[in-house]
Amino acid sequence: MRRVTTADQIKQLILTRNLRTGDPLPTEAELCETLDVSRSSVREAIRTLSTLDIVDVRHGHGTYVGGMSLDPMVQALVFRGVLSPDGSLDALREVVEVRLALDLSMADKVVAAMEGTDVEELTEMVSEMVEKADRGEVFLEADRAFHTTLFAATGNRLAEQLVGAFWDVHTAVLPQLSVAMPADMQTTAHAHGDMLSAARAGDVEAYRRAVVEHYLPLQRALGVTVDR
Amino acid sequence: MRRVTTADQIKQLILTRNLRTGDPLPTEAELCETLDVSRSSVREAIRTLSTLDIVDVRHGHGTYVGGMSLDPMVQALVFRGVLSPDGSLDALREVVEVRLALDLSMADKVVAAMEGTDVEELTEMVSEMVEKADRGEVFLEADRAFHTTLFAATGNRLAEQLVGAFWDVHTAVLPQLSVAMPADMQTTAHAHGDMLSAARAGDVEAYRRAVVEHYLPLQRALGVTVDR
Repeated sequence: MRRVTTADQIKQLILTRNLRTGDPLPTEAELCETLDVSRSSVREAIRTLSTLDIVDVRHGHGTYVGGMSLDPMVQALVFRGVLSPDGSLDALREVVEVRLALDLSMADKVVAAMEGTDVEELTEMVSEMVEKADRGEVFLEADRAFHTTLFAATGNRLAEQLVGAFWDVHTAVLPQLSVAMPADMQTTAHAHGDMLSAARAGDVEAYRRAVVEHYLPLQRALGVTVDR
Repeated sequence: MRRVTTADQIKQLILTRNLRTGDPLPTEAELCETLDVSRSSVREAIRTLSTLDIVDVRHGHGTYVGGMSLDPMVQALVFRGVLSPDGSLDALREVVEVRLALDLSMADKVVAAMEGTDVEELTEMVSEMVEKADRGEVFLEADRAFHTTLFAATGNRLAEQLVGAFWDVHTAVLPQLSVAMPADMQTTAHAHGDMLSAARAGDVEAYRRAVVEHYLPLQRALGVTVDR
C-alpha cells in the first residue's frame, strides 16, 4: 500500500473542513501543527499540490484551494507532443483525433443548448475569424473562445475544459514541429460560422458536417488521410 | 512574460539531448553545472516535473525521463469529484458523460480495428465480468482492462489513456460519494459482451447501442435522466 503523504493529509483536511476553490488554506505553521509534520514536508506537499492546481500559492498573500484545472495535463501532453520520436506528428494527430471525436460526440448536446439562441458574442468571434483569415492572419484567441463557449452551453464543465485543454495542446505543439500553417485556413474560419448557424437552426447533421469540414485543413497539414 | 524556470530548462535539455521515456537524466550535480542554478532549484524542479510525470524519480537509482501519463490529471479530477459542493454528483455525472461521448465517438474506429478479430483476452475479460456479476461481485479490473484494450486497438494512445484515466476518476470517486453500487450490474457485465460481439461483427450501430446499454445502470445510480 502507498504510504499516506503530507499532500494526502492536506487533501483530506480540505475535504473535512469543507473548503472550496478560492478558500484560504491554514498557514504553514498551522498545517505543521495540525498534521504533526515538519515545515519542509508541508512546503514540499504544497509545491506538489500547486503543480496539480489543487492549491494556489499567491506569493505575498497566502495559499488557497486551487481550481483543479486541466493545466497540469496540458503541460505534460504538450511536452509529449514535442517529444515524439523522430519529430513524428503522431502525438499531434492523436490530439486532433480526440478533439474531433469530442466535438462530434457532444454535437447533439451543443445543438440542443444553442437552438434558437442568438448569442452576439459567438457571432462576433466568427466575424473576427473570417476577417482575419481573409487578411491571412491567425485567429487563435477567437478560435479557442468559440469552441469553449459552445461547450460551456452544454453545462458540462469537464467537457468544456477538455476542449480548451486539447486546443491548448495542439496549438502549443504545432509551431514547435514546424508544421506549415495551413494555406486554407479560410475553410476553417468559415466552418466555424457553419457550425454556429447549424447549431442555432437545431440541425445536428449540418453541425456535424461543419465540424468535419472545420478540421480538414489541419488534418491535411498533418498528413492525415480523411474519409469523406 | 512568464520567467523561464529551472523546470523549463530541464524540459529544454530533454528535448535538445533527444532523450526518451526511460532514458536517464543527468545527475543533480551535472544539472546544477549545465543549467547554472543551485542544487535546491534543481531539486524543486525535479519534484515539479515528477508530479507531472515528466520525470520519474526511482529512489536509490536515479532520475529518468517519465511516461508523461495522464495520472496528474486523474489526481486533480478525482479530488474535484470528491469535492463537489453539497456532495452533489455533478462532477461525477460529467465524467460519465465524457466517457460515454468518447466511447460513442470512437465507435467506428474501434469496430474497424476489431472486425473479424478473435482476441482471446477480451473474451476472457467478458466471461470474468459476467461470472462475477452473477455472483454479486464487483469486476473492476476486468472492466478497466476491457475498455483500454478495445481502445488500444485503434492505435490512438491518447484516446486509450483518456479512457483509462476517466475510468479511474469515476471508480475512485464513486465509493467516496456513497453512491450505492447499482443492483443491475449484470446489465453492464453483459453489455460488455454485446459490445465485443458487435465490434467483431463489424456492426457499428449495434456497438453503439451496447455502449449506451452499458452505461444505463451507472446513470440510473447517478440519477441521470436518459433519453432512449
